[in-house]
Amino acid sequence: MKNISRANCPIRRATDILTDQWSFLILREFFLEGETRRFKDLQNELGLPPNTLSNRLKHLENAGVLERKLYSSHPPRAEYVLTEMGRRFGPVLEAMIDWGTLYPDRGSTNKSD
Amino acid sequence: MKNISRANCPIRRATDILTDQWSFLILREFFLEGETRRFKDLQNELGLPPNTLSNRLKHLENAGVLERKLYSSHPPRAEYVLTEMGRRFGPVLEAMIDWGTLYPDRGSTNKSD
Repeated sequence: MKNISRANCPIRRATDILTDQWSFLILREFFLEGETRRFKDLQNELGLPPNTLSNRLKHLENAGVLERKLYSSHPPRAEYVLTEMGRRFGPVLEAMIDWGTLYPDRGSTNKSD
Repeated sequence: MKNISRANCPIRRATDILTDQWSFLILREFFLEGETRRFKDLQNELGLPPNTLSNRLKHLENAGVLERKLYSSHPPRAEYVLTEMGRRFGPVLEAMIDWGTLYPDRGSTNKSD
């Protein structure tokens, strides 16, 4: 493992931004479905309550991972795009896919835990 | 991005196991400090309340990432080791380190969010 400092730990900072499972799954959608997603797309894909989705998107936007752009002004409608910082998160998701794929019976399909 | 199924998504399953920031930081310790850690070591390194640490370790043990081994029977004392599944999580942490290192001012040092 690379030498890292606990005081300004890059893993801790990464997980400050990706605070929970939904944050990972929201980002996943941009890599699976395209780098521009509308609120409704994400809601349909993830089945998240609107308030929860809205909070997570706001957090990811403030963190610099997503950018919010208006695509209609009457009525105002926004879409979200990955920033450069967001696109560079791809390798983390790829590594998670590799790991999760090695253990197909672990996690949400394993209800014994 | 690799083609994955939302129904049995490996990212979702990975984040079912690594449920929160502490899970990532607990695993980090095994890669930074050695593949065997005692409860007290982890407590000192992470500054976590014992109950929280105990719950997270139990979860990671049930998930198959860590194994608990007794190293003393009088009094009973346990240490934790990475399983094969736990060792294979290394590339995810490496990818998070790479990403977090690109953005040293984001996350816990950025209090504007």
